[in-house]
Amino acid sequence: MSLLDKLNWRYATKKFDPAKKLSTDQLNTLLDAVQLAPSSAGLEPYKVLVIEDPEIRAQLREAAHGQAQLTDASQVIIFAAETNLDENYVTHYIDQIATTRGIDRVNLELFEKNIKNSVNSMTEDQKIIWNHKQAYIALGVLVSAAADMGIDACPMEGFQAGKFDEILGLKALGLTTSVIAPVGFRAEDDAFSKVIKVRRPKEELFIHV
Amino acid sequence: MSLLDKLNWRYATKKFDPAKKLSTDQLNTLLDAVQLAPSSAGLEPYKVLVIEDPEIRAQLREAAHGQAQLTDASQVIIFAAETNLDENYVTHYIDQIATTRGIDRVNLELFEKNIKNSVNSMTEDQKIIWNHKQAYIALGVLVSAAADMGIDACPMEGFQAGKFDEILGLKALGLTTSVIAPVGFRAEDDAFSKVIKVRRPKEELFIHV
Repeated sequence: MSLLDKLNWRYATKKFDPAKKLSTDQLNTLLDAVQLAPSSAGLEPYKVLVIEDPEIRAQLREAAHGQAQLTDASQVIIFAAETNLDENYVTHYIDQIATTRGIDRVNLELFEKNIKNSVNSMTEDQKIIWNHKQAYIALGVLVSAAADMGIDACPMEGFQAGKFDEILGLKALGLTTSVIAPVGFRAEDDAFSKVIKVRRPKEELFIHV
Repeated sequence: MSLLDKLNWRYATKKFDPAKKLSTDQLNTLLDAVQLAPSSAGLEPYKVLVIEDPEIRAQLREAAHGQAQLTDASQVIIFAAETNLDENYVTHYIDQIATTRGIDRVNLELFEKNIKNSVNSMTEDQKIIWNHKQAYIALGVLVSAAADMGIDACPMEGFQAGKFDEILGLKALGLTTSVIAPVGFRAEDDAFSKVIKVRRPKEELFIHV
């Protein structure tokens, strides 16, 4: 299948087959892809939770209007934005660049200063919005990678983020729920898998200049 | 190449080869992929500008700290969020679903009402932030699709959005610049193509529950 065939094959899966689970290899490859998502300045100001625990998933389902994807999918992937993006976070990131690339930290000082200025120029609210947006890039990569691998996913915003934060103890970790995507395999009788995909027509979506 | 190899191959291309352009087929396939990006409730509350005009690109470059990607890439892809997401927008979307799927509009009334309630529950600022986030999903799909096709891209936030809006006349179109990605092919001497990719290590990025 071509990439476009795969993207046409995917859809927001409403009904997962609870008997079908990702293999360890499939899950690892999918997470490897998510890890490679780009982010502004490379900061990756989010974490990615991989939820398998059935009790936690039952609680999350209640906080997501009872939607069955939360319990029936193979895993629930939760993107959570960092709420404490500060100079320490940036310092740690620059340390990682120096270590990974084996370069002298002094060569990264200008880059570090620029990022810190940029981080310090934002209010706390602006920073969290910015972090959420970076998480959404990773969601786009997850959805694409899953389709590429023949794995179903359902990107979802229809949940109570505050309750998710409570259930998962995210506040103490300096995180807040951004967006989620249960992953797994569609049930054969999911009616939504049969309907025609609706997208803005090209002449509405694209402007050529 | 596997998907992971492709995602490892890609990087935020700093120096494009100005002599290398996407073929018409490559550009169309890339835009087809972007068109298939998912969005909340399927609203796609953004447009995608494809900029080729050299004079406009020179102006955009000035408004992007002089970064050469703006003029040297094959095209500059600009995601612009809708600033007038209102009931009319939703009505038009529901019309498109009815037409595309050939179903009676009355069967979509509950879905329509839910989306309108959700749109009306947000302030104008909240709606624009929400629309930006949807555009970032499409950016994630663009980056993945480009990598899949061996096309280079440079997702960028380092530009003056207000100036971009002015240069492109976006206010009159009910749009505001969200995020951009010049696309094309890397210059052979782009030093950034040789450096090791830095990502948060798995034990920092992922939390298994």
